Amino acid sequence: MTRTLVLGGARSGKSMYAQRAAEAAAAGGGQLVMIVTAEAGDDEMRGRIAHHRAARGPAWRTRETPLALTDALNELGETDIAVIDCLTLWVSNLMMKDADLDAETQNLTQAIRTHRGRLIIVSNEVGFGIVPENALARRFRDACGRLHQNLGAAADEVILVVAGQPLKIK
Amino acid sequence: MTRTLVLGGARSGKSMYAQRAAEAAAAGGGQLVMIVTAEAGDDEMRGRIAHHRAARGPAWRTRETPLALTDALNELGETDIAVIDCLTLWVSNLMMKDADLDAETQNLTQAIRTHRGRLIIVSNEVGFGIVPENALARRFRDACGRLHQNLGAAADEVILVVAGQPLKIK
Amino acid sequence: MTRTLVLGGARSGKSMYAQRAAEAAAAGGGQLVMIVTAEAGDDEMRGRIAHHRAARGPAWRTRETPLALTDALNELGETDIAVIDCLTLWVSNLMMKDADLDAETQNLTQAIRTHRGRLIIVSNEVGFGIVPENALARRFRDACGRLHQNLGAAADEVILVVAGQPLKIK
Repeated sequence: MTRTLVLGGARSGKSMYAQRAAEAAAAGGGQLVMIVTAEAGDDEMRGRIAHHRAARGPAWRTRETPLALTDALNELGETDIAVIDCLTLWVSNLMMKDADLDAETQNLTQAIRTHRGRLIIVSNEVGFGIVPENALARRFRDACGRLHQNLGAAADEVILVVAGQPLKIK
Repeated sequence: MTRTLVLGGARSGKSMYAQRAAEAAAAGGGQLVMIVTAEAGDDEMRGRIAHHRAARGPAWRTRETPLALTDALNELGETDIAVIDCLTLWVSNLMMKDADLDAETQNLTQAIRTHRGRLIIVSNEVGFGIVPENALARRFRDACGRLHQNLGAAADEVILVVAGQPLKIK
Repeated sequence: MTRTLVLGGARSGKSMYAQRAAEAAAAGGGQLVMIVTAEAGDDEMRGRIAHHRAARGPAWRTRETPLALTDALNELGETDIAVIDCLTLWVSNLMMKDADLDAETQNLTQAIRTHRGRLIIVSNEVGFGIVPENALARRFRDACGRLHQNLGAAADEVILVVAGQPLKIK
């Protein structure tokens, strides 16, 4: 089954692309699963998550997973069609918990490499600007770059979304 | 007639690419029109606009349109070959006037969707860096992303310019 | 012989791609030369440069060239297979010396245009974020953009590395 990494800039349409690709795959059968890394920490975020869930409609099962992505992947069934949205927020969540980013990257990459179902992973490409002055932002940017490199090698397909349009990289 | 969205980074050669594409199209006839969104607010800017106008040469008619892009489009003739340069500055001008960005985006998208002449629209891709700390910059970045998504869907062609070289996205 | 410009974001895998491409070319004969623009200004940097040199292995000859890239190119033999890593650091080094960036860009472009050996030039794409508030960063970003445009025209091949995967632009 195909594992796809979908990268894109801010408001590039990458989430919508991933969702549509999953729905197209589900036309042949399989349960749609949305694994969101956003955390309902306050009322505004709770409202946004609920809004997105309603917009996706009842065909989707949603799972909020701010940190334990590898576990969430391992619990998926082989016929599930899953989207993870998004990895950059996951990296940010891990950094706030002072987690071991290299170990987490290795674990997730391994889980994706051995995953048997259709999987579409969304992430922000954040490395095409100038070096940030903020040290934490530099660390975040480097961690995302290394993660994307690892997943780019593990994935069957890499898509860059520009102006809502998909560009096949791999 | 083809409507092309040309995206690129800072000093990527996107304007030059758009200008050359328009001039190539005009070899088959038609008036070249450059719609610039820069405003001659001070002497330096006035000088730069005049310099660019002189560099383009007499085949081009230039129209300064910091805000009313939709009107400018609607006033074009069907045989005009027009370049809009650039959309990111237009978004910035709209934000300084506290305009309704969603409404402006919808209006421009609609005007482009129904446009009958050759049209090449230049814009900066600004969404591939880390999230800006400045709230206004975040709002600007999001507005540009949504606008590009809309225009990417409406355009017949989307080109990303990298190191002066065009990459076809759509 | 092919001159390749390899662009990529932070931690995108662009250096590894360039190194592997050079090693593949060297399978047909020729001396591998790594021209690094990093300067061993302090112990940490000295350690990192030594670490990278050891990781590349004994097949590579390494030359530290923070500023005189054009000279380094002109001293290469026709059978040398050279990587320059990276140009953005070179631009930064030049700016710290208050060098004439336009003249340096012209000289390097000319040297690359007339170069007779296999050459792979690595640089960071830094122009896809929002306009930096810092004036020096804006100057740096513009200088890199102009340099990439020049080299994109001079090179036989332009590659954008995304998530470790190469995308052919030219």
